[in-house]
Amino acid sequence: MPLTKTITSLPEIDQVMDQSMQAFLEYKKINATDRAAFLERIADEIEALGDILIRTTQEETNLPEARLLGERGRTTMQMRMFAAMLKEGSWLEASIDHAIPEKVPAKPDIRKMLVPLGPVVVFGASNFPYAYSTAGGDTASALAGGCTVVVKAHPAHLKTSSLIAAAIQKAIEFCKMPNHCFQHVIGTSFEIGKALVQQSHTSAVGFTGSFSGGRALYDYATVRPKPIPVFSEMGSTNPVLLLSDALAKNAETIATQYAGSITLGVGQFCTNPGLLIGVGSEGLDTFKITLANAINQVAPAKMLHSGILNAYETNRSNALTTKGVSTISNNNVVNENSAAPMIAHVKGIDFLTNENLKEEVFGPYALLIECSDIEELKKVWTSVSGQLTTSIMGSDKDFETNPELMEMASQIAGRVLLNGVPTGVEVCASMVHGGPYPASTDSRYTAVGVNAVKRWVRPVCYQNCPDHLLPDALKESNPLQIKRMINGNPYQ
Amino acid sequence: MPLTKTITSLPEIDQVMDQSMQAFLEYKKINATDRAAFLERIADEIEALGDILIRTTQEETNLPEARLLGERGRTTMQMRMFAAMLKEGSWLEASIDHAIPEKVPAKPDIRKMLVPLGPVVVFGASNFPYAYSTAGGDTASALAGGCTVVVKAHPAHLKTSSLIAAAIQKAIEFCKMPNHCFQHVIGTSFEIGKALVQQSHTSAVGFTGSFSGGRALYDYATVRPKPIPVFSEMGSTNPVLLLSDALAKNAETIATQYAGSITLGVGQFCTNPGLLIGVGSEGLDTFKITLANAINQVAPAKMLHSGILNAYETNRSNALTTKGVSTISNNNVVNENSAAPMIAHVKGIDFLTNENLKEEVFGPYALLIECSDIEELKKVWTSVSGQLTTSIMGSDKDFETNPELMEMASQIAGRVLLNGVPTGVEVCASMVHGGPYPASTDSRYTAVGVNAVKRWVRPVCYQNCPDHLLPDALKESNPLQIKRMINGNPYQ
Repeated sequence: MPLTKTITSLPEIDQVMDQSMQAFLEYKKINATDRAAFLERIADEIEALGDILIRTTQEETNLPEARLLGERGRTTMQMRMFAAMLKEGSWLEASIDHAIPEKVPAKPDIRKMLVPLGPVVVFGASNFPYAYSTAGGDTASALAGGCTVVVKAHPAHLKTSSLIAAAIQKAIEFCKMPNHCFQHVIGTSFEIGKALVQQSHTSAVGFTGSFSGGRALYDYATVRPKPIPVFSEMGSTNPVLLLSDALAKNAETIATQYAGSITLGVGQFCTNPGLLIGVGSEGLDTFKITLANAINQVAPAKMLHSGILNAYETNRSNALTTKGVSTISNNNVVNENSAAPMIAHVKGIDFLTNENLKEEVFGPYALLIECSDIEELKKVWTSVSGQLTTSIMGSDKDFETNPELMEMASQIAGRVLLNGVPTGVEVCASMVHGGPYPASTDSRYTAVGVNAVKRWVRPVCYQNCPDHLLPDALKESNPLQIKRMINGNPYQ
Repeated sequence: MPLTKTITSLPEIDQVMDQSMQAFLEYKKINATDRAAFLERIADEIEALGDILIRTTQEETNLPEARLLGERGRTTMQMRMFAAMLKEGSWLEASIDHAIPEKVPAKPDIRKMLVPLGPVVVFGASNFPYAYSTAGGDTASALAGGCTVVVKAHPAHLKTSSLIAAAIQKAIEFCKMPNHCFQHVIGTSFEIGKALVQQSHTSAVGFTGSFSGGRALYDYATVRPKPIPVFSEMGSTNPVLLLSDALAKNAETIATQYAGSITLGVGQFCTNPGLLIGVGSEGLDTFKITLANAINQVAPAKMLHSGILNAYETNRSNALTTKGVSTISNNNVVNENSAAPMIAHVKGIDFLTNENLKEEVFGPYALLIECSDIEELKKVWTSVSGQLTTSIMGSDKDFETNPELMEMASQIAGRVLLNGVPTGVEVCASMVHGGPYPASTDSRYTAVGVNAVKRWVRPVCYQNCPDHLLPDALKESNPLQIKRMINGNPYQ
């Protein structure tokens, strides 16, 4: 029986969260090997759904098969990555300080490790129906950390979400995990999301989506009698610096590269490069013309759903009617219900004086900002809010001339790219997917990579605890054979 | 010139925070060796203040010389501990994933490390005029992490705070650190604190003190247009379980131990054991009598200031006038302006039905809760909110009979103590000083130990960045010789 439940009332939410808390008290005790096997089984069950999953998602999202196959692979890979993390064990940050009885005052034996927070509520994204949704990074990392999970299905892909939830349910049964360690709910109103965040058992929230949605959940959580952490990964305009020497040498190549990145997946990535910033020059003119020509040749394509298409057209129109903004591309192909890619242009001075131009236009769109000099370029760059990424297209000469740019970049974003495009988020230990607000509500965490688990756990220490009462991770003999900090020396 | 400044207006706050941000842009670039030398110099300068510091603080806080000497030692030790952490370097969580060009799609080179958030505003505690105040753990960890610091002096020890600030200023000058990397302000109104938290350059807040104060700062921070992290370490009742077999064997010893802990430093520790929970038995009766007798022999002593004494008497009186509450000690010694220690008693059922008994009574006071059976004991224990600590006095037999207690303990508190007292917080890598709300506003962090630095930093990753443009911590040749994660393998 897949645990998909349509909830319409507060008592139903209480029941779901009560069940999640009951399951949590069992689930948190399950050892790392069994928890890892559970995550691996989820990956297997998702793969076992086969073509029906891909076809269902194609119908619901307009995303092409190749993209969905890739995203499914990433989703199952993430599950297996967290399983591997559990088996390896150093993520627990186990740390032992031995007693020093002769110290004055005597130093007690103290041992620390991470423990799960409790039930986590996950709101998935529409643009990643697998990798940031029902069995996505938030769910995988929370289950890995020992938290139970309640996913509120995204209304744009309910069938996909239910199929994935059924696969997870099969894994729960196969691995004999506690009932309700994962639950899947369908909420029919905005109030359901709010109530899920504010239910007393809810211990943390993961969200991927719009700024307005992510901020609303954050606000619901912080006014609770007992506030809880919210990890909202929100919009980003991902500013790109186009430096003069790089443009002088490679304007055409860079333009072609960026035409691909701007229109990849109909521009529906949170890392889509929305602001291109350069100083007026011959190189920038070449870049402009090449980019516009390339964009004109990209066929309009269907977006995820009509709501996203409407928002794209409205937001783009708001930008285009702003003082000083013009279009430099001219893509006139008309496909019904499809989003035409577009490049707009504005001078630095007009960008700086029109706040609305700093807002994300989610879709295959970018605004080229032409600055009068490098000082104005830096002003434009640092005038935008916190970002998931910022990219610099620059030659060695550019960086010699402007050595301060690297340091500035780390102030602006969670990920700094050199001579590349921000679309494409590698899943690995060094990845940071997050950034200063409003890229995310807590810049201290990443939503991608094994460190994503750190959002759902907290440290506990045990003082003078007899060895047989300690969790295995902290026992003197190290039965789990994990790397631990011993007396302040890392990773013995 | 010591940077102590009395601020009374919003433009003055803007100026202070502007200066802090300007200093931050320089200070964050300073290498670990120089930053470590700065912290060490602060420790030296505090020691160089000599007797005048101790005498000033004695006058301001009524704390005895021995306690202040100990606390000063802890404060300078913390500075040197963070200096050692900087030199060792693994705290940066540097992580390198090498490119795999042949992967499809190609894996880029990605390298991650922690960077400072920005200017941190610190509100110190009255009960630790050194170790949790002007040069306390928040200031030390923030400066270590590369943040600049603005301390709002605690009004209860302004002279002490100004002396310490002058010592830090000397260290700034000696080490040629950026002006304003540390600032010390005296605010004359409640609004000043609020405005400091809400000033746009403020990037994070550290607070140690009351629940009402800590929650207020949290609320100011979370309603900002750009919310910032607040680490408030607030009140705690630190519940203690007195299990039956342990009492049957050692009631008198345990009672004597706890009489000392409850009255240590006139009960003015956030880890003071305020709730003692046991099941009615002969052992508990012995414990009760021994504890009461011991408490009756402790001389009343002056608290930190009259406000704290008044609050102690009011809060105690609120507890004592609650249904079912009686006093079991009888300390009639009267010292003017001094707090008499006291033990109150209530039955489990009355505790469970009177919410106000769960509130902290800051001072030399504890409430003994006598339960009808172990089930009621567990109900009482889990009915209290999140705690800094919880202690269990139990024998092997007790734990064999109640194996679930250890797991329950980790749900309740950040630190779990076995057969000991919670007062006394060891400063070491494994220490967790924090806990579920309302012990702190973010249970994912500790306020004590080297991990306290993690509150003030965030990760940044660099993608395909030429080696010479990377921060030293991420360069391929590892010039800092620090432990790093390489391709997902921890600490190579």
